[in-house]
Amino acid sequence: MSNPFFINHGPFDISEILNLLKINLKIKENYSIENIKDLVHADKNCITFFHSKKYQKYASKTKASYCLTTQNLKDYLPNYCKAIIVENVLIATSLVTKKFYPDSIDDEFDNTVNNIEKTNFNRTVNFGKNVLVGNNVKIGANCLIGHNSIIEKNVQIGNNCKIGSNTIIRNTIVRENVTILDNCVIGKKGFGFFPQKNKNLRYPHIGIVIINENCEIGCGSTIDRGSMSNTEIGKNTFLDNQIHVAHNVKIGDNTIIAGQVGIAGSSIIGNNVKIGGQAGISGHLKIGDNVDIAGGSGVIKNISDNSKVMGYPAKNIREFLKDNK
Amino acid sequence: MSNPFFINHGPFDISEILNLLKINLKIKENYSIENIKDLVHADKNCITFFHSKKYQKYASKTKASYCLTTQNLKDYLPNYCKAIIVENVLIATSLVTKKFYPDSIDDEFDNTVNNIEKTNFNRTVNFGKNVLVGNNVKIGANCLIGHNSIIEKNVQIGNNCKIGSNTIIRNTIVRENVTILDNCVIGKKGFGFFPQKNKNLRYPHIGIVIINENCEIGCGSTIDRGSMSNTEIGKNTFLDNQIHVAHNVKIGDNTIIAGQVGIAGSSIIGNNVKIGGQAGISGHLKIGDNVDIAGGSGVIKNISDNSKVMGYPAKNIREFLKDNK
Amino acid sequence: MSNPFFINHGPFDISEILNLLKINLKIKENYSIENIKDLVHADKNCITFFHSKKYQKYASKTKASYCLTTQNLKDYLPNYCKAIIVENVLIATSLVTKKFYPDSIDDEFDNTVNNIEKTNFNRTVNFGKNVLVGNNVKIGANCLIGHNSIIEKNVQIGNNCKIGSNTIIRNTIVRENVTILDNCVIGKKGFGFFPQKNKNLRYPHIGIVIINENCEIGCGSTIDRGSMSNTEIGKNTFLDNQIHVAHNVKIGDNTIIAGQVGIAGSSIIGNNVKIGGQAGISGHLKIGDNVDIAGGSGVIKNISDNSKVMGYPAKNIREFLKDNK
Repeated sequence: MSNPFFINHGPFDISEILNLLKINLKIKENYSIENIKDLVHADKNCITFFHSKKYQKYASKTKASYCLTTQNLKDYLPNYCKAIIVENVLIATSLVTKKFYPDSIDDEFDNTVNNIEKTNFNRTVNFGKNVLVGNNVKIGANCLIGHNSIIEKNVQIGNNCKIGSNTIIRNTIVRENVTILDNCVIGKKGFGFFPQKNKNLRYPHIGIVIINENCEIGCGSTIDRGSMSNTEIGKNTFLDNQIHVAHNVKIGDNTIIAGQVGIAGSSIIGNNVKIGGQAGISGHLKIGDNVDIAGGSGVIKNISDNSKVMGYPAKNIREFLKDNK
Repeated sequence: MSNPFFINHGPFDISEILNLLKINLKIKENYSIENIKDLVHADKNCITFFHSKKYQKYASKTKASYCLTTQNLKDYLPNYCKAIIVENVLIATSLVTKKFYPDSIDDEFDNTVNNIEKTNFNRTVNFGKNVLVGNNVKIGANCLIGHNSIIEKNVQIGNNCKIGSNTIIRNTIVRENVTILDNCVIGKKGFGFFPQKNKNLRYPHIGIVIINENCEIGCGSTIDRGSMSNTEIGKNTFLDNQIHVAHNVKIGDNTIIAGQVGIAGSSIIGNNVKIGGQAGISGHLKIGDNVDIAGGSGVIKNISDNSKVMGYPAKNIREFLKDNK
Repeated sequence: MSNPFFINHGPFDISEILNLLKINLKIKENYSIENIKDLVHADKNCITFFHSKKYQKYASKTKASYCLTTQNLKDYLPNYCKAIIVENVLIATSLVTKKFYPDSIDDEFDNTVNNIEKTNFNRTVNFGKNVLVGNNVKIGANCLIGHNSIIEKNVQIGNNCKIGSNTIIRNTIVRENVTILDNCVIGKKGFGFFPQKNKNLRYPHIGIVIINENCEIGCGSTIDRGSMSNTEIGKNTFLDNQIHVAHNVKIGDNTIIAGQVGIAGSSIIGNNVKIGGQAGISGHLKIGDNVDIAGGSGVIKNISDNSKVMGYPAKNIREFLKDNK
């Protein structure tokens, strides 16, 4: 994944990374690590991570020179990729990612913002009262930004977009002709952490949010940015009010999502999907194209293309209605 | 429906309307159309629309001189009402309504607002910091408006009302003794559009929101205005936090709605109804008086007066609890 | 319950209280009442209330000198505690509490706030634009407060806390290392009132919100303060976005609550509990320690320690999945 927004504080020598993880590993030589990436995207200047056998195919082909993994998994790696054996791969990955991208953990309020009147957008954007804009923001032609909204650092907004009032956006790419209504929070870190007694360990969110052309996002919605990948909303997809889209979710094109729907982390929703009000989609699912999910449904399994489902757990809608006459 | 807020940009000659719809219809004479209204409310200077056989009774009695309809339906109209045959009645209606009421589509932020300190309300309203007020706003005696709230154009607020902080209100009539808490958005356009590949077609929302005497609206709630009719909350009805009321919904008097409930478009809720937390009501339903809907229920059918229901789909509560022992 | 925030307008002579309730009771002498407290916490200068037989054990041991109760219950009280017989104990309690704590009813916007730049926090807090702070606020070392947030009167914030933007906090104690994200409303009055034709009677909320060490609260969440007791979130408990926690709820330590969950009034959630997205917990329930509640569940009964539940109504998860294959 390209990362346009979070600053990579690397490179770091591999010895520094081993120190961070409190690992005593004999390393022959110095080696400069430029980034941490997943098994597929890592190149030879990267460290990667491998925590589950289901990724063995990718592990065997990774180009990374170092890999955070376990004793059980290390033999799937190619010879040139040196295994760094850790107790918990995901926690180690989190710590190393935090070293490269320290700004991706905490979502402190953006102290780079200025009133838009004092920026160059003063002339090019049509804005309301008390609008704040941070560093590294681009805003296209013919855009509107409503009162009290905050475009924090690391945001790109395309042409002809309308941002409502009291809305906060950060770490987000908004393409052309997008409408985002009032009171939304777009691009904050997701709800991802390792539960630990007394103090949970937050993991980095170096993904961003991408909202594609012609979308509309309703009032009071929250769209969290991804952890290692992006959260993305396809073209001409419309979201109603009070919707929650968690980290790493991908939603396709021409999809319609009614009020108060929640989509848990890392689920993938297809094109031309309709989701009724208050439906919930569990995490890590795949919902096909042209699927209809009735309002109030709770989806806990993958749904294949062209299905109509209803219920909790959601099943074929005719079956559900027959069972619930 | 009277329309106190949206400015009618008509009249338009019937030829202009036919041009807009790209229709070639032989018209004998010029004819000035003053408004678009439904079958019942249209008079002879209006154009109306007729898209479903279930309205044939109203169609046969309409006073309109022109009617957007289909080949199949046109013969239900009286002789003096000229049928304009279109492919999709609702899309044509939408386009014509947009011509009369262009401000009802987009909900751009209100650029007529000023800090309340610079308005005549400076002396008559008790207000917080950074309160903004738009054109065509009336606020009664003894009202409070909290910090950062925005009373956009086209709002009437009665006496003794309390508006919280960070709340946005537009196109709304609030009657006396109403409390609206923090972070609400009241009166935005509803989630109504014609799905179209690449770019959905939004339809106009020329309805308003009416909140009657003695109501209370909880924090973070959204109440959308109607499309062709109003969204209305009855007297002394209390809504808890994070509630979503969609366009055209009517809620009766003395009704109590707990947190996170969602009511889909055009449903009608009676008087003295109790709705438990997180319940959902599908669209276009009629919920009678004195109905109890248990928390978490999903209502997908009409509910008759004095019923107690629970479940998804909601059914008689005793039956539900027996089935789910 | 100690009450650090609401000002007690007492003492009142018992005759004033009887007048308020329109009760003609022969009282031998003047007696000064300092406070209203529950049966357990009242001392001899207090008035208390007793409305249900299930509290008879506490009633028989109360130290209060006066008690609002009914004819049927009065004989459970000790001899020195004089019964004041009323038609509706809870309404009478509400009226008396309102007399002692008139500020606990209405949640009018806080007109004591100032821009933080004009307060002593100017030097000790790291804050964004347009931050407002009210009277009787304490903020510890090393805290951040984001743009447009309002720390209303009666708030204590510990060291190392991060408050997001557009967030409103009142009547709340926030302990150390707590993160509260954007667009939250913390500490408003709960959804508690006596339904009455034409005009519901709100009861006082003299409880506060306590958020303990190391918690995180997601965007757009609402946490209401308690009525006669507090609403409290245990240490290291993490809440995702758009969560609603009603009045008097207690949540334990190390608990994880996913997006859009709602917890109704007075329920008690244990330690190390996991609650999936969109689940709902009815009011007045007890959820034990180490409980897992699957996303979308509707919990309507107490749940014992170490249980895993799913469904609506929620039951043993294995049973639910077997029944819903």
